[in-house]
Amino acid sequence: MISSTQTPAAVSAEDYLRYAADRVNRALEELLPSEQAAPSELHKSERYSMFAGGKRLRPALCMAAYEACGGTGDAVLPAACALEMVHTFSLIHDDLPCMDDDDLRRGRPTNHKVFGEAMAVLAGDALLVQAFELVANTGNAACVSTLARSLGSQGMLGGQVVDILSEGKTVDLDTVDYIHRHKTAALIAGSLVMGAQVAEAPAPIVEGLREFGFKIGLGFQIVDDCLDLEQTTETLGKDAGSDLENNKATYPSLLGLEASKAKAVALIESAVTDLRALPIEGAALEAVARYIFTRVH
Amino acid sequence: MISSTQTPAAVSAEDYLRYAADRVNRALEELLPSEQAAPSELHKSERYSMFAGGKRLRPALCMAAYEACGGTGDAVLPAACALEMVHTFSLIHDDLPCMDDDDLRRGRPTNHKVFGEAMAVLAGDALLVQAFELVANTGNAACVSTLARSLGSQGMLGGQVVDILSEGKTVDLDTVDYIHRHKTAALIAGSLVMGAQVAEAPAPIVEGLREFGFKIGLGFQIVDDCLDLEQTTETLGKDAGSDLENNKATYPSLLGLEASKAKAVALIESAVTDLRALPIEGAALEAVARYIFTRVH
Repeated sequence: MISSTQTPAAVSAEDYLRYAADRVNRALEELLPSEQAAPSELHKSERYSMFAGGKRLRPALCMAAYEACGGTGDAVLPAACALEMVHTFSLIHDDLPCMDDDDLRRGRPTNHKVFGEAMAVLAGDALLVQAFELVANTGNAACVSTLARSLGSQGMLGGQVVDILSEGKTVDLDTVDYIHRHKTAALIAGSLVMGAQVAEAPAPIVEGLREFGFKIGLGFQIVDDCLDLEQTTETLGKDAGSDLENNKATYPSLLGLEASKAKAVALIESAVTDLRALPIEGAALEAVARYIFTRVH
Repeated sequence: MISSTQTPAAVSAEDYLRYAADRVNRALEELLPSEQAAPSELHKSERYSMFAGGKRLRPALCMAAYEACGGTGDAVLPAACALEMVHTFSLIHDDLPCMDDDDLRRGRPTNHKVFGEAMAVLAGDALLVQAFELVANTGNAACVSTLARSLGSQGMLGGQVVDILSEGKTVDLDTVDYIHRHKTAALIAGSLVMGAQVAEAPAPIVEGLREFGFKIGLGFQIVDDCLDLEQTTETLGKDAGSDLENNKATYPSLLGLEASKAKAVALIESAVTDLRALPIEGAALEAVARYIFTRVH
């Protein structure tokens, strides 16, 4: 929908995402408890949502930030896997009947439609717990702290609360902005920060990547809102128009589609300008960031 | 119900529990986000359940283990507060309509009856996240790892899964034992281990306290089952007979009340024998452990 072809010649976003997803998927396969291990039903439920075709965007951003800061090898994998676990936790809980009540996610029935609500709540809880365990076991306390702050009441969960409370109400752009910055951008920013922290990057670079992450995260959510309005259920793999159905205010519903797309483009360009000013090897990061504006999730 | 008055003369369990609760309540008051801070509704929901009259048993056990191992001062408070947060998280989620569907907890309406199901799910999630943040900020990675393992699919959440899946089915004592060891005993054992870890106790003492915790945790849950069967709703502050109503197998339903009480007494006596063999100052721990067999939660 929004075309953006200015990726640096040397790095293909598709290649980088495939490389990151391969590594993360192999690691997740080992880290997640086996379906044969007790309690089997919980592990099946966790794996059902973890291996549902997600693009591993947050792990890819985390790995790209790590490598941009000079990190090499597998030390970033626990953080990368943890990010996908907490992202999946949030999707499972958000889809619950008491939240957004969605039946489809990535083209398949949502977790609670297959395993029941109780198991969906518990699978989300278990993924959240294992994510913290993974990052804690690296011994990097700053990284655990980043994960917690990205998720807590001043992060993703705070955004979800305001989102839920805003349903069916007339809300202004400030509120939509609050929701997007917390519900989506906080964890994307956290993904970049965690990558930089695992690489032990100096504070100015960590903060620069945090800002970069907030900008692309907000832009990403605006693109998502536009897609939700434009596309069919079949293309999107989740209930299309579910924002409308849930009576949710979004950027396009308040600003219109064209102005929203312009806002998203301005955000990515500003983010990239900031990124290029940092003394790191940002080509893959830039490529992935631009790519996520061309499609979603 | 089960009388046990062999507390060491020097330490009053009531005094110790009051001392621990005072310190933990003051710390929680500071640590939990203010109801005035956005998102206010979430913070109200968290505080409603956190300040609902809980006895702070897990924090008290954590503090007593810490002090038994020579720890002094406030370094144990983040772990102690985190334990109460994750305990409250588990109560909020367990009470949900899709789980045990309980209307009363500690004599008051359950969280979802007051704040709605969505906010209850999110308040539980937020408490879980903040608990990990607190412990991570101490820089004690082993402690974060203990918290995670006590809660995960091989700990509390695993027990809750089997509990939910067993409802309405004929289950044997092994299954009830599995549920109790995971759902209740794992976090009580974790409380003792975390206290010892904050005090940097040597591994044999940490492991000894873990075993002690598993025994008193299992005994504690058996006592709870007996109370659930014996007492009225008014005395208990939660729906009495809810195990029966939910068709849950318990120790007394399988073994009878008297045999269950005898099992609980055997567990506490065995736990205390083990405790006395450890080279630590265990008087307060022993007093608190014995006390919790005289009443519940």
